Amino acid sequence: MLPTTYLALSGERFRVTYRLTGDEAQAGDKARDICIEQTVEFPEGLLPDGDIREHIVGRIESLQRVSAKSCEVVISYAVETTGFDFVQLLNVMFGNSSIKPGIRVERLDLPDSLLRAFKGPRFGQAGLRALVGVGERPLLCTALKPMGLPPSELAKMAYQVALGGIDLIKDDHGMADQSFASFAERVSRCAEAVARANQETGHNCLYLPNVPGPVDRVVERGLFAKEAGAGGLLVSPGLLGFDAMRLLAADDAIGLPIMAHPAFQGSFVTSPDMGVSHYVLFGQIPRLAGADVTIFPNFGGRFSFSKEDCTLLAQGCVTPMGHIRPIFPAPAGGMTLERVPEMLEVYGRDVIFLIGGGLHQRGPDLTENSRYFRQLVETLAG
Amino acid sequence: MLPTTYLALSGERFRVTYRLTGDEAQAGDKARDICIEQTVEFPEGLLPDGDIREHIVGRIESLQRVSAKSCEVVISYAVETTGFDFVQLLNVMFGNSSIKPGIRVERLDLPDSLLRAFKGPRFGQAGLRALVGVGERPLLCTALKPMGLPPSELAKMAYQVALGGIDLIKDDHGMADQSFASFAERVSRCAEAVARANQETGHNCLYLPNVPGPVDRVVERGLFAKEAGAGGLLVSPGLLGFDAMRLLAADDAIGLPIMAHPAFQGSFVTSPDMGVSHYVLFGQIPRLAGADVTIFPNFGGRFSFSKEDCTLLAQGCVTPMGHIRPIFPAPAGGMTLERVPEMLEVYGRDVIFLIGGGLHQRGPDLTENSRYFRQLVETLAG
Repeated sequence: MLPTTYLALSGERFRVTYRLTGDEAQAGDKARDICIEQTVEFPEGLLPDGDIREHIVGRIESLQRVSAKSCEVVISYAVETTGFDFVQLLNVMFGNSSIKPGIRVERLDLPDSLLRAFKGPRFGQAGLRALVGVGERPLLCTALKPMGLPPSELAKMAYQVALGGIDLIKDDHGMADQSFASFAERVSRCAEAVARANQETGHNCLYLPNVPGPVDRVVERGLFAKEAGAGGLLVSPGLLGFDAMRLLAADDAIGLPIMAHPAFQGSFVTSPDMGVSHYVLFGQIPRLAGADVTIFPNFGGRFSFSKEDCTLLAQGCVTPMGHIRPIFPAPAGGMTLERVPEMLEVYGRDVIFLIGGGLHQRGPDLTENSRYFRQLVETLAG
Repeated sequence: MLPTTYLALSGERFRVTYRLTGDEAQAGDKARDICIEQTVEFPEGLLPDGDIREHIVGRIESLQRVSAKSCEVVISYAVETTGFDFVQLLNVMFGNSSIKPGIRVERLDLPDSLLRAFKGPRFGQAGLRALVGVGERPLLCTALKPMGLPPSELAKMAYQVALGGIDLIKDDHGMADQSFASFAERVSRCAEAVARANQETGHNCLYLPNVPGPVDRVVERGLFAKEAGAGGLLVSPGLLGFDAMRLLAADDAIGLPIMAHPAFQGSFVTSPDMGVSHYVLFGQIPRLAGADVTIFPNFGGRFSFSKEDCTLLAQGCVTPMGHIRPIFPAPAGGMTLERVPEMLEVYGRDVIFLIGGGLHQRGPDLTENSRYFRQLVETLAG
C-alpha cells in the first residue's frame, strides 16, 4: 500500500488564470475537470488518498464571474509537477486542456522557486538598448526580403538600410537554408555588409539572421552566426518549438539577443474562448523562453489582432516576473511610416518599430527611406 | 540589376489545399494574399520580374466554392522554398497565414522530390504489428498514471497490465523528469517490469516512456530508453516541437517506434474556419515527422472532436504519400470498454485502442481488466 505522504513537496505552487465559458456552476465544473486533466488524468474517485489527491491535483484558488458568458478561475499547481522544465510547464499549464472547448489561458503567476529554473532574456530592454547604443527612443527594425533574392542582393539591402540608420535588421522568417540562398552564405555576407556600414556610420546596427530547422542544428547555426558577426538571432518558436528558442537564448557560447517571430502561432489566439491570451503567448512565454524581442502583427495592419490584444501583449512584455527581464514588443505586419505617431501613442517609447515592405514602398532608395524613418522617430520621440 | 532567371528551380511544386471563408471573389483575394504572405511577404508591385514573381510566389491552381460560406483553394509552391526541411515546410504551408482570419489548411500533396527529404515512420502499421506480433486485430494500449506515483508503483502497474495481454504501455504524457519520479528510474523500472511480464506471457508488449524536455536532451533520453529496454517513445510534438519528434524518429541508434501525443495542439483545430484540419495536423504531419501512432481524443469522450473529425483524421493516417508509411490512429481520452464495438465500426481493425482511466474503473485487478479488454477485442475482431 502506498504511504499517503511521500512526495516531499515544497508546498510552492504556481498559478494559471483561465477564462472559462459558462456561469459560476458551469465554470466550476470545468475548473474541477482542469485540475484533474492537467495533472493526474485519472478518475477522481480512484485516486489514492494523501499527497496525490491533495497536492498533485490542481487546486482552485478563486472563481469570479467576469462577463455574461464567462468566469475567470485561478488554478494552482505544485511547482514540482513541472520538473522545473519549460516544456513540462507548458504541458501542466495547457497540454490536454487545449483540446477542450471554452478554456483559455489568461495569465501565469510563477513563484521565484519556479522562475529560478529559467534564465529568461539575456539582454531584455535595457541590455538591447545598450548593444545598439540607443537611449530612450523606439528602436528601428526592418527585414531582408523577398525570399528568392541571392545572398549578394540581401547583403546589399542590409548595407543600404544599415547606412540609413536602422538599428536592427532581421531576415524575413522565410529565409531558411535554401538552394538559392544558403544559411551560411547569407549570414556571412549580410553580417559583413552590416559591419561595413557600421564602420561608416559609427552606429551599432545588429543583423539578426533567421535560424531555420532542423532543430538539432540550431545551436550549430547560432554559433556560426555569432562567429560570422551576426548581432542576434531570429527564431520562430511556433515552428522550431518553444524550447528550441530557450536553448538558443540560454547558450552562453552564442550569447546573442533573440527575436521571436509569431509564425504558426496564430491558431492559439483565434478565439476569445479558447487557446492562450496574447499576454501569455506573445508576452510571458517568450520571456520565459529567453526572447529579448517579441514580434507580433500590429492592429490595423494586414493581420487580425485588435488594439486591445496588442496592448495586453505589450503588458505581458513588461509585467513583473521575478528576475525575468522586461522585453521589447515589436509590432509589425503591414506597418507603414504613416502609422508611427499612432503607434507611439499606444506603445510608448519602449517598443521596436518593425517595418518591412513599407520601407520599400516609399521609393527605390533604401538608405534614404531608412534615414527618413529614423528622423521621423527621432523627431516624434527623440 | 538582378537577372530574371537565376534560381535554377526544378519546376517541382507541392500543393496545399486551403479552405477560405467567403464567396469566389473574396476567397480569390485571400488566395492571392496567401501566395504572397507565405513566400515573399513583399508588396507585389515591387517584386522583381522573373523567377521570384513567377516561381517563388505561390500559385493558385484551383478555386472551388464548397459551401455557402467558403471555397477550397489549392495553392502550389516551389519545393525549393522549403529548403527540403520539415520546419520550413510547415512555415511555407501556414506560418504567417495562421495569424489571418478565415484560412484553414485542409490537405497536403507533396511530390516525391519533396517526400524524399523525409524518412517518415520507421515502422508504420505493418512494422508495429510485426514488433508486437499481432496480425490483424486492433492493438491494445494503456497508460501509466496517475502523476505522483513513484517509479516502483508505476512499474508494478506496467507489469500487471502487460501480464494481462496489453500490447503497448505508454507513460501518461505528464510523466516528465520530476523529483517524485525521475525519467531514468521510471524508465528503467517500467521497462524491466514489462520484460519480466513478457517472459511469462510470451508476448511482446512494448513500453513507451514519455520523452520530456529540454529539447537538447531528447536524443540522449531516447538512447537511454532504448538501452533500458523500452520498446518505443511517446512524444508530444505540440510541446517539444514537431521537428524534435522527427529527430527522434529518424535517429538510427534509437530506432524505436514513435507515438505522438496531441497535448498543446488543440488550438489548431478549434475553429472550422481557421487552423489546420484534423487530417493534416494529426494525420499527415505526424507521418511526415516519423510518428508510427497518432493519439487523439475520440469523439464522444471528454474532448471536443466530432465523429467526422476523427474519421478524417484516420484517413490522414493512411492516405497514400509516396514512401511514407501508413500509421495507426489511436483514439483515446475517456475511452471505456463499452465503446469498443462502436469504435471498431468507425475505425476498422487498423487502430490502436488506448484506454487509460477506463481500465482502472472496471475493478482493482488490472491484470484481470486487461485480459477482459483483450478478450473483448479478440472476440469482436479476432
